[in-house]
Amino acid sequence: MNGDSASPFPPRREAPIFARLAIIGIGLIGSSLARAAAELNLAGEIVLTDRDKLVRARAGEIGLGLIAATATEAVAGADHVILCVPVGACGAVAAEIGPHLKHGAIVSDVGSVKGTVVEAMRPHLPGHVHFVPAHPVAGTENSGPDAGFASLFFKRWSILTPPEGTDEAALATVRRFWEAMGAEVEVMTASHHDLVLAITSHLPHLIAYNIVGTANDLEAVTQSEVIKFSAGGFRDFTRIAASDPTMWRDVFLNNKEAVLEMLGRFNEDLAALARAIRWGDGDMLHEHFTRTRSIRRGIVAMGQEKPETDKLKKD
Amino acid sequence: MNGDSASPFPPRREAPIFARLAIIGIGLIGSSLARAAAELNLAGEIVLTDRDKLVRARAGEIGLGLIAATATEAVAGADHVILCVPVGACGAVAAEIGPHLKHGAIVSDVGSVKGTVVEAMRPHLPGHVHFVPAHPVAGTENSGPDAGFASLFFKRWSILTPPEGTDEAALATVRRFWEAMGAEVEVMTASHHDLVLAITSHLPHLIAYNIVGTANDLEAVTQSEVIKFSAGGFRDFTRIAASDPTMWRDVFLNNKEAVLEMLGRFNEDLAALARAIRWGDGDMLHEHFTRTRSIRRGIVAMGQEKPETDKLKKD
Repeated sequence: MNGDSASPFPPRREAPIFARLAIIGIGLIGSSLARAAAELNLAGEIVLTDRDKLVRARAGEIGLGLIAATATEAVAGADHVILCVPVGACGAVAAEIGPHLKHGAIVSDVGSVKGTVVEAMRPHLPGHVHFVPAHPVAGTENSGPDAGFASLFFKRWSILTPPEGTDEAALATVRRFWEAMGAEVEVMTASHHDLVLAITSHLPHLIAYNIVGTANDLEAVTQSEVIKFSAGGFRDFTRIAASDPTMWRDVFLNNKEAVLEMLGRFNEDLAALARAIRWGDGDMLHEHFTRTRSIRRGIVAMGQEKPETDKLKKD
Repeated sequence: MNGDSASPFPPRREAPIFARLAIIGIGLIGSSLARAAAELNLAGEIVLTDRDKLVRARAGEIGLGLIAATATEAVAGADHVILCVPVGACGAVAAEIGPHLKHGAIVSDVGSVKGTVVEAMRPHLPGHVHFVPAHPVAGTENSGPDAGFASLFFKRWSILTPPEGTDEAALATVRRFWEAMGAEVEVMTASHHDLVLAITSHLPHLIAYNIVGTANDLEAVTQSEVIKFSAGGFRDFTRIAASDPTMWRDVFLNNKEAVLEMLGRFNEDLAALARAIRWGDGDMLHEHFTRTRSIRRGIVAMGQEKPETDKLKKD
């Protein structure tokens, strides 16, 4: 939607928000943040690191910013530190960088789960830093330092989940940072975040991963047939099911309760639909399929997606 | 993918394939066929009809072709008749037009289920016509005469399921008709079609309709939150779940066995994933999520979809 004239991509700032921004983990999100920060002048210096030597080398090659060999080195002197690593790695990284954080630095992350991440990171952060967890609800099926782009967060929501007692000025600064990239910001508790994302993101991913696995294992239908005729609906699931396996393993392990709760409801509803199919209850099916259209209309109306025909026509 | 220079949209034919093409049902598919036939010169005359008076009037207004008041009138003199009505209505339409079909006419349909449609239509078709059932695996979330566009079938698969003993020349003509619109054609039995589509299209729709319904019914998460944060994966499901309710009711009622069989396998697999989440089996999850990437790569490699980043960047 970057071409939408009503709300153009944000202009480059005259003065940076942070003197030194440290990004730990150079995947899709980390490399997109670095690109956006550079393009929009959000930080005087951008320093990145990744535990993978090859990723660090690649990030240097494509000029994402200064490359540090370790997380400890990356956070030295940084006034904003963002962990862009899988959810399951956040605690260990926090433990590693804790003693080396600059006085008054703002520490954040981009994890898709917030409750367990906050619990895992918080004990390792010294009292003199501000912790403002964040979750940009944006992504593509691609991973790695080459996958990022500056407009990834544009017109997407970024959710901040400040623990009770978070410094208001630090929260406002983080909000400004995301808004400078064109993101819309919402603030909620970590536990509510985890419930909302369980239905809008985690369960959809689980189901997509599952159906693609089911299709893969069939004997009566070949994989080549599944691929050929995927335009009938399956294709959209495969895109979701191509997301980074490590990131998603960690999401499910860290948002277990909310995901299993939503899955339980999903299963109950699915059993009712299956029953209607088995007994030929066309009215129940029609009523259900009509009701689900309204949510779609809400999404299109809110600019979170264009109707599909436009896309097809433009392609 | 219409902009792909390696395989451009087909040129306009010098001579039409059919003298008179009759399209019964003016929804997304019917109106797309009319547009493609006119743009590519596939028929000397195009006549359309719909049981809804307002739809007929609208189709006339936007110049889709000659408008007939009834199906009987539409098929008079037509050498190709295509039923573009919901699967559940095919039998009744066949009974209505049967006695009025031109000698040697080719009758086809575009239904997403083939077994029951062939059974429902065949008894009503006289021996002097050729019956070549078809299913273009293409669509959007939009319905009605305004939703169609000429390139809907371009680079999409169209599956023909000729009953045993179908005239080879008639089959070749129908193949030529679809290929002239840029579609790729595959021939298979009706029962195999129904199995393939159960996994590549019907089950994905059922699941999408289901999860959107589940989200709609939550108390702890508001509908506005579901809409806002839908970019995390849910959004793609809502597009599928916005498809025409009547069409999809009929699909499920008519492909009951294959859908319930695939759903059974899906449920078994989902139970295994849920168990891995509950017991924290990260290795099982990681292995599963890695395996599903290969099908996605196949779809992108076959040109059935571009990687998502391109789309986002272009938007």
